[in-house]
Amino acid sequence: MAAVEIEQLIQLLSKLPGLGPRSARRTALHLVKKRDVLLGPLTQALARVEESVKTCTVCGNLDSVDPCSICSDPKRDPATICVIQDVADLWALERSKNYKGQYHVLGGTLSALDGIGPEDLRIDTLVERAMNPAVAEVILATSATVDGQTTAHYIADSLENCEVQITGLAHGVPVGGELDYLDDGTLNAALSARKPID
Amino acid sequence: MAAVEIEQLIQLLSKLPGLGPRSARRTALHLVKKRDVLLGPLTQALARVEESVKTCTVCGNLDSVDPCSICSDPKRDPATICVIQDVADLWALERSKNYKGQYHVLGGTLSALDGIGPEDLRIDTLVERAMNPAVAEVILATSATVDGQTTAHYIADSLENCEVQITGLAHGVPVGGELDYLDDGTLNAALSARKPID
Repeated sequence: MAAVEIEQLIQLLSKLPGLGPRSARRTALHLVKKRDVLLGPLTQALARVEESVKTCTVCGNLDSVDPCSICSDPKRDPATICVIQDVADLWALERSKNYKGQYHVLGGTLSALDGIGPEDLRIDTLVERAMNPAVAEVILATSATVDGQTTAHYIADSLENCEVQITGLAHGVPVGGELDYLDDGTLNAALSARKPID
Repeated sequence: MAAVEIEQLIQLLSKLPGLGPRSARRTALHLVKKRDVLLGPLTQALARVEESVKTCTVCGNLDSVDPCSICSDPKRDPATICVIQDVADLWALERSKNYKGQYHVLGGTLSALDGIGPEDLRIDTLVERAMNPAVAEVILATSATVDGQTTAHYIADSLENCEVQITGLAHGVPVGGELDYLDDGTLNAALSARKPID
């Protein structure tokens, strides 16, 4: 049908999350049509990422330097480590521009179904980091799902011998959220964690 | 937030059709995680497309050779030219594996709203090709939309002095389609073009 080169591109594009064969074809065509403004720059951007982006050996973040720019930033509080599942969660926390401590990317959650055990996650290195007397608090910010909470409990147990305070994110009504649309679990959590208003 | 290289990649990915900033981030992360099986091959595939794919000067198809492999295929009937809006339509017709003639890609439709006039489409070269006595039929396969049909009429007028038969695709019930879900226009077209069943 299309040229071999385009067929190969379509096949690879259809492996991207959220793109099926149909949208992969549309994307490939769009790329060829916007050769100068999109195809060329995208090729270069991918090559640069492939060449320079690596996983931080301290926290598991992705960056072009190792240790990553967050781990090596002297302005960030070394006493707090926030444990997250994925680099995407790190990006989300960084976008909220409030947290100024360190991170630790687990690389997933424990999952019996998917056969992911503790040895598949970056838990050993977290315990090692938490042993450092400079660390005072470990925030467990895994997802509020069954797997996420199981993982949080497992990590809390693993950190038993470290002299750190272990905390978790608060549950409650999302800011801007309407009660009518919230699930029972969230409403119950918000209600039982209610606070006096001054 | 993320490394500069990743931010640039996210920015470019978010310009692809159907990808917003959120799915662009997800895609970028997916690419970095699947460095060997996806990021590398995709970079190479894009580079190959950028390097070798060009527009066929005869029909407007995209291929690594010019004239394209359809135009230069001796097994394809040179007497029939199917006029389509876009390379995606050519791919769709090729997938259906029935049409064995030539193509002519217009590159869009006439559109007063978008300021697309006849000079922006590949109409001149179509008239030139149709002048060739070897061409017996021109199939106008533009979309069954207002713009598509306006374009078809314009092209039919432009081909007035060529000795070719001008045909259009049949309208009717899509194969596998349920009457209940069809619009009035399609139903009326299917009804008035009804055929005796032998």
